[in-house]
Amino acid sequence: MVKVNDNYLKLPGSYLFSTVGRKQREYQAAHPEAKVIRLSIGDVTQPLAPAILDALHKAVDEMGKAETFRGYAPDLGYEFLRNVIADQDYKAKGCDISADEIFVSDGAKSDSANIQEIFSLDNKIAVGDPVYPVYVDSNAMAGRTGSYDKNTETWSNVIYMPCTAANHFAPEIPKETPDLIYLCFPNNPTGATVNKAQLQEWVDYANKVGAVIIYDAAYEAYISEPDVPHSIYECEGARTCAIELRSFSKNAGFTGVRLGFTVVPKDLKAEGVALHGLWARRHGTKYNGAPYIIQRAGEAVYSPEGREQLKKQVAYYMNNAKYIYDGLKEAGYTVSGGVNAPYIWLETPNGMTSWEFFDYLLEHANVVGTPGSGFGPSGEHYFRLTAFGSYENTVEAVDRIKAMKI
Amino acid sequence: MVKVNDNYLKLPGSYLFSTVGRKQREYQAAHPEAKVIRLSIGDVTQPLAPAILDALHKAVDEMGKAETFRGYAPDLGYEFLRNVIADQDYKAKGCDISADEIFVSDGAKSDSANIQEIFSLDNKIAVGDPVYPVYVDSNAMAGRTGSYDKNTETWSNVIYMPCTAANHFAPEIPKETPDLIYLCFPNNPTGATVNKAQLQEWVDYANKVGAVIIYDAAYEAYISEPDVPHSIYECEGARTCAIELRSFSKNAGFTGVRLGFTVVPKDLKAEGVALHGLWARRHGTKYNGAPYIIQRAGEAVYSPEGREQLKKQVAYYMNNAKYIYDGLKEAGYTVSGGVNAPYIWLETPNGMTSWEFFDYLLEHANVVGTPGSGFGPSGEHYFRLTAFGSYENTVEAVDRIKAMKI
Repeated sequence: MVKVNDNYLKLPGSYLFSTVGRKQREYQAAHPEAKVIRLSIGDVTQPLAPAILDALHKAVDEMGKAETFRGYAPDLGYEFLRNVIADQDYKAKGCDISADEIFVSDGAKSDSANIQEIFSLDNKIAVGDPVYPVYVDSNAMAGRTGSYDKNTETWSNVIYMPCTAANHFAPEIPKETPDLIYLCFPNNPTGATVNKAQLQEWVDYANKVGAVIIYDAAYEAYISEPDVPHSIYECEGARTCAIELRSFSKNAGFTGVRLGFTVVPKDLKAEGVALHGLWARRHGTKYNGAPYIIQRAGEAVYSPEGREQLKKQVAYYMNNAKYIYDGLKEAGYTVSGGVNAPYIWLETPNGMTSWEFFDYLLEHANVVGTPGSGFGPSGEHYFRLTAFGSYENTVEAVDRIKAMKI
Repeated sequence: MVKVNDNYLKLPGSYLFSTVGRKQREYQAAHPEAKVIRLSIGDVTQPLAPAILDALHKAVDEMGKAETFRGYAPDLGYEFLRNVIADQDYKAKGCDISADEIFVSDGAKSDSANIQEIFSLDNKIAVGDPVYPVYVDSNAMAGRTGSYDKNTETWSNVIYMPCTAANHFAPEIPKETPDLIYLCFPNNPTGATVNKAQLQEWVDYANKVGAVIIYDAAYEAYISEPDVPHSIYECEGARTCAIELRSFSKNAGFTGVRLGFTVVPKDLKAEGVALHGLWARRHGTKYNGAPYIIQRAGEAVYSPEGREQLKKQVAYYMNNAKYIYDGLKEAGYTVSGGVNAPYIWLETPNGMTSWEFFDYLLEHANVVGTPGSGFGPSGEHYFRLTAFGSYENTVEAVDRIKAMKI
C-alpha cells in the first residue's frame, strides 16, 4: 500500500505567493471595476531587452537547420555561457571561480529548493527571519525541519535568525551551531544588505564550525553602494564553505524566460566529500539542462549591448523603488530597503498584522503587496512592496497609499 | 558540522549516458581521424518543424513588448497549452483527463526523477529490468532502495521485474507486492510494448493492492500498431492508480527545447490524501514553470500544421528504425523493438558483455550504442541502438556493422 511523504502534510497553507495570488483574484472577481495594482510578487514588467530578443531569434533560427540544431545540452550547461559568467561575474571582480564550477539551471528558485537534496537529512538549517520561503519549505518537504507550531508559525528544528529594525535586518550569528546556513543578500524581502566585513564574519564562522553557507545573490544587480559584496567569493575562504545561487530573473527580466546558475567550488567538501560531484550527479540524474535558446539569451546578457540595455532596466526599477520609499516615508510610514534592492520593507501602521494590512491595502487602495509574516515570524507587522511594476502603476499605487487613511 | 546525503555515495559510477559520452570522447581524442556515429543517447537530430519555429519567433516578439510581455507562468502551466493537451491527447482519445490535472514541466526526465518526492521513503518500488535508469537512480538518491550489490548490480530494496526474450520484454506482475510501480511503454530501452488487455491487468492489480503506477509514455508518438495503448488512461480504473509522464522530446524534437508534462488525476489518493495536491505543492515550491516561449512552442505541436510536420518527422525516424532492424537481422543478429519505438534492442554476439560489445563496436565500426546492462541487470548481453540519427548516418552505421566481423 503506497504511502505519501507526510512531511508535505505538515506544511502550513499553500505557497505564500499562491495565496497572495488567490486573494487578489477573489477580490478582483468581487470588484470587477477595481483597477488592482500588483506590487506583490517580485515579477518584472519591462519587456526583454533588444540584445536578448536578437539572441533568442538567432538561436531559434539555428534550431531550424540540421547543421546548427542542438539536442540535449551538456550536463552543466553550455560552455559559451559558463565561460562568460566565470569571466564577467567572477574573474573580472577578483573572485577565483572557474567555468567548470558553474552549473546552469532553469532558475534560482529551483536551485534554492533542490540544493538541500545533496545534504543529509540529519543537518540543522539556519535561516534569516524573514526570508524567501522556499529555503524552509523545501527543507520541510524533505523532512529536515521537525514539527510545525501553528501558534508561533515556526518549525521545531530550524534555527531562526531574526532580522529586525534593531539589527538593521541583518542576521546575527546564532547561539546554536547550524550545519547549513541560508543567507540572502540583498535580502528578499527586507532589501537589507551586509558589507564585506560582515559577510567575511559569516565565512570565517562557517569555516570554523564546518557549516556550509547557501548564499542567494539573486538581487546582486541592484546593489548601488560600494562596500556591499556582489558575491560571497569576494570573501577570503568562501571557496571552502559557500555555494552561491544566481538568477537572471531580476537583472535581465527572465522571470518568464527561466535561467539561473549555481556555483559549487571544487574545494568545498563535507565529510571529505566534494559537494561539486554530488551536485553534478543530481544535475545529471534529475535535470536535463536549460533550453539552448534560453542559454543563448543568457549569453547576450553579458554582451556590451546587453549590459548597457540592462543597466537601464535596473535603473528604471530602482527609480520606482525610490518613488515608493520616498512616498511612504512622506506618508508617515517606517520604511527600509530600496537602495540596494528592488524591495521596500515597511512597518504596518497601527499594529495591524501583516495579513490585516494586506486586506486593508487591497480594499482601500486596490494595491496588492506581500505580508511580511509570510516570510517568517519576525516579518509579522511588516509588509513588502516591490519596485518591479511600471513607473505609471508605481506612481499611482503610491499616490493611492498616500491618500489612504490609516 | 555539515553532513552529506550519503545515499549519493552508494550510487555506482556516473549516470549511464555521461559514461557513454566520456568513452566516446576519449576514443575520438585518441583517433581524431575516425568518423564516429552516435546511435547511443536518444537524442534527436532533425531540426525543429516550421510550425514550431514560427511559434517560437512569435512568442519571442511578444516578450519584447510591454503589452504582451510575460513574467512568471502560472504554477501548473499556461492554460492554452494544458487545454490543448487535455483535448487532443486525452479527450479526443476517450480518456477522462481535464486540463487542471495536467502539470507542465521542463521534461519527462525531471518529472520521472522528481515524482518520487511526494511519496514516503517507506515505499518499495518495482521497476522493469532493463529500464531508463532515472527511476532507480532518483529513488536511490532519496534513500529508498537499500544497499547496492556490485556483483549483481542490484539494490537490496528494489523489486526488479525482468524483461527478457522469454516474456517478450514485458514485465510480469511480481511475487512481492510493490508500492510504486514504474512502467515505461513503449519501452526504453527495449522498444517493447504491451497491448491494452495487458496494461489493464496492471491497472487492476495496482487498484487491488493499493499501489501507484508511474506510467512513462514518452515514446507514445512512435506507436504504430492498433492495439497498443497511447495512454494508461485508456484503461478502466487508471484514474485511481496511475500518474502519467509525457515528453515533447521525441514526438517534436524538443530534447534541447525542454518541455513535458505529468498527469495526476484528482481521483488518485494514497492514505486518503490526493496526490494532485502534493504534486501541485511540489511544483509551486520547487519549480517555477517552463518558459513562456517554450510553452507556445508546445502549443504549436498540436496545431494542424505542427501535427502534419511532426508526423513526417516521426516517420523519418521510424524509417531509420526499420533500416537498423532489417540490417541487423540480415547480419545475423537477434533483434527486437523498432516497430512501436525508435529503439532497436539486440543480443550481443558471441556472449560478449554489453560493455565489451560497446568497446568492440566503437573500435571496429566507429559506432556508439548504449550497453544494455546500463539499464539493469537483465539488460546484460543486450545493446540498444537508436533511430534518432540522420538517415545517411544510420545507413552508414548499419553498413559498417554488417561489414564488421563478429
